[in-house]
Amino acid sequence: MIAGIELLNLTLLRFPVCFKLHMTSITTLKVVLPDHRSYPIFIGAGVLDQPELLRPFFAGRQFCIVTNTTVAALYEKKIYELLVSNSPGAQISVVRLPDGERYKTLETLNEIFDVLLQDRHNRKTTLLALGGGVVGDMAGFAAATYQRGVDFLQIPTTLLAQVDSSVGGKTGVNHRLGKNMIGAFYQPQAVLIDTDVLKTLPEREFAAGLAEVIKYGLIADADFFSWLEANIDALNNRDPQALVYAIRRSCEIKADVVGQDELEGGIRAILNLGHTYGHAIETEMGYGTWLHGEAVAAGMIMACELSVDLGWLDPDILTRSKDLLLRSRLPISPPPGMSAEAFMKHMSVDKKVMDGSIRLVLLQGCGKAVVTSNFDQQALVSQLRKL
Amino acid sequence: MIAGIELLNLTLLRFPVCFKLHMTSITTLKVVLPDHRSYPIFIGAGVLDQPELLRPFFAGRQFCIVTNTTVAALYEKKIYELLVSNSPGAQISVVRLPDGERYKTLETLNEIFDVLLQDRHNRKTTLLALGGGVVGDMAGFAAATYQRGVDFLQIPTTLLAQVDSSVGGKTGVNHRLGKNMIGAFYQPQAVLIDTDVLKTLPEREFAAGLAEVIKYGLIADADFFSWLEANIDALNNRDPQALVYAIRRSCEIKADVVGQDELEGGIRAILNLGHTYGHAIETEMGYGTWLHGEAVAAGMIMACELSVDLGWLDPDILTRSKDLLLRSRLPISPPPGMSAEAFMKHMSVDKKVMDGSIRLVLLQGCGKAVVTSNFDQQALVSQLRKL
Repeated sequence: MIAGIELLNLTLLRFPVCFKLHMTSITTLKVVLPDHRSYPIFIGAGVLDQPELLRPFFAGRQFCIVTNTTVAALYEKKIYELLVSNSPGAQISVVRLPDGERYKTLETLNEIFDVLLQDRHNRKTTLLALGGGVVGDMAGFAAATYQRGVDFLQIPTTLLAQVDSSVGGKTGVNHRLGKNMIGAFYQPQAVLIDTDVLKTLPEREFAAGLAEVIKYGLIADADFFSWLEANIDALNNRDPQALVYAIRRSCEIKADVVGQDELEGGIRAILNLGHTYGHAIETEMGYGTWLHGEAVAAGMIMACELSVDLGWLDPDILTRSKDLLLRSRLPISPPPGMSAEAFMKHMSVDKKVMDGSIRLVLLQGCGKAVVTSNFDQQALVSQLRKL
Repeated sequence: MIAGIELLNLTLLRFPVCFKLHMTSITTLKVVLPDHRSYPIFIGAGVLDQPELLRPFFAGRQFCIVTNTTVAALYEKKIYELLVSNSPGAQISVVRLPDGERYKTLETLNEIFDVLLQDRHNRKTTLLALGGGVVGDMAGFAAATYQRGVDFLQIPTTLLAQVDSSVGGKTGVNHRLGKNMIGAFYQPQAVLIDTDVLKTLPEREFAAGLAEVIKYGLIADADFFSWLEANIDALNNRDPQALVYAIRRSCEIKADVVGQDELEGGIRAILNLGHTYGHAIETEMGYGTWLHGEAVAAGMIMACELSVDLGWLDPDILTRSKDLLLRSRLPISPPPGMSAEAFMKHMSVDKKVMDGSIRLVLLQGCGKAVVTSNFDQQALVSQLRKL
């Protein structure tokens, strides 16, 4: 049945196929890309209990599970057994990275290469990224660059990774002078999103993931934003049905945008709502002090505020966004004491800066984002000076 | 005129356009690839004296010349002025790497990122790889991974880089456990091959480049091999006309193969004739002790010998290859004392190994290479045991 899902020509499979396997409902989306690089996203409770899902994506008999020490204790054994049950003669290596954004560096990346080479993995090996965004970004970049590119699967274990970083092929590491400055666009063979793993996710990390979910409503779907307002309590209680819907709709929007603009030449940049401000916060505080989603939450509110200041956005949307983020236990303002100077310094090395004028993702309505440097840049300075 | 060269549908422009610019004859070849990634190779004496050639390839106003300390002293000023004359308001950074294969590492790569970030290069920057294969591989990999990919130009200054590494988009660095184990396929916007720069190339490096030139004859063109036998003295004397022809024919063959198989899924691997043996030699001796071309020369003879042992190749071709390499002042046997065990150890981690049986590039005639693991592997062991 999986193999039967058709590749639709350059558009997202908007009406996901649902089917039963072992009595579990799995939703399948597809990121549609040229050159045979399209890939499925499997979403549901118990995805990782279904070895058949993985089988079509095994190119060889070598595997390397890349995870971190925290996630390894919870799910490494499950993935290991999944591999063995699919491929009894498999050669399986495991790399357990230290947990945290501050380890997302070239040095840590080299630890993955060390294991791959020590264990003599060849070009037919498959990497499995088991963890949150940091693990996914690093394992993906390792896959992109090991022997100039090998297969990899994303198995995201945080809400943020499930709705954002595991889909779309952005991989990379940080540099001491900037976040995500070294990396590649490199697509996985498949993404396996098992909502069951969210049961073990700490509350603060769960909230950080909700920030990106809310972002999708703001940039692309006013109805989804309203749905989130109505269902935020169910999500906070991790109601399985609500979770599957929120994750599916987030991945649909992301897959649609990525399918249109894989290399972020244009529209893809709308996915960065709040991220330019957010990266400045993360850099100023030191990676990992604020979680990425927390910084994005505060950054989204700053982007909404600037949009209101410019007269582009109804102030009511700003108010509703603040309310929704607060109900999601997320910050709605930058860290106390972070100065205008600190923002300007960090924002000017951000990737969104082109030839001297700052480009930002701003809103012209709920569900309507634009990427532009065509705004009164003095309004940005004024906004920051008020801090 | 340059812009008027037509993109031919997935085949090499086999009859290069010659035209006059400033009284100099420049040959233009094209590597034809999908997704608007085709690019020209300009070949001739004085290519670097023609700023017009470069102009179409400038995406922005930021440039970073990546070179090494040796080449910087000879040609950095020329390139700097070429940039200024094209783009008077240009922001130009320079990275001078230490010279040598042993610096082709992730650590040295990070020095390029340091400069790019300190000088606030954005996604519209263009990197210029000015140097030999090491500089080209590292600058290309930096371009592939800085902010997930920026433009770059190849300006090869060694014969080896001009006929091999600057064309085809293989970029990367070495790892202590293997050569070129970390990298990406990433194509330049253009390659500028100025035969004038070969005037300053040391004799040993020139010979190393000839090894790759001879390789093209052996793998793909018996007539070219005969031409080389007839013209090796002219090449050794660096006769400009002979050089331009040898480089052009080498680049034509390489561009043709790369256009057919960019990611080395199949036929591209024939370009690695002698390289599996050669990499073993380089690894055993320590990178840089033998030049890459020297190791490839000895490796090609070993591949010819094995082909003869298997009964696939006329022994006369082996004899002629040895003669031609000797006349090019190249080694025709591995380093004295290098054992069968050393070869086997290093060859088994080579990228050409797939699932346990060794794949090699072997010859079934002059100009007829095959990539195969379908040969009597014991013949390889016997060959090495004779060392």
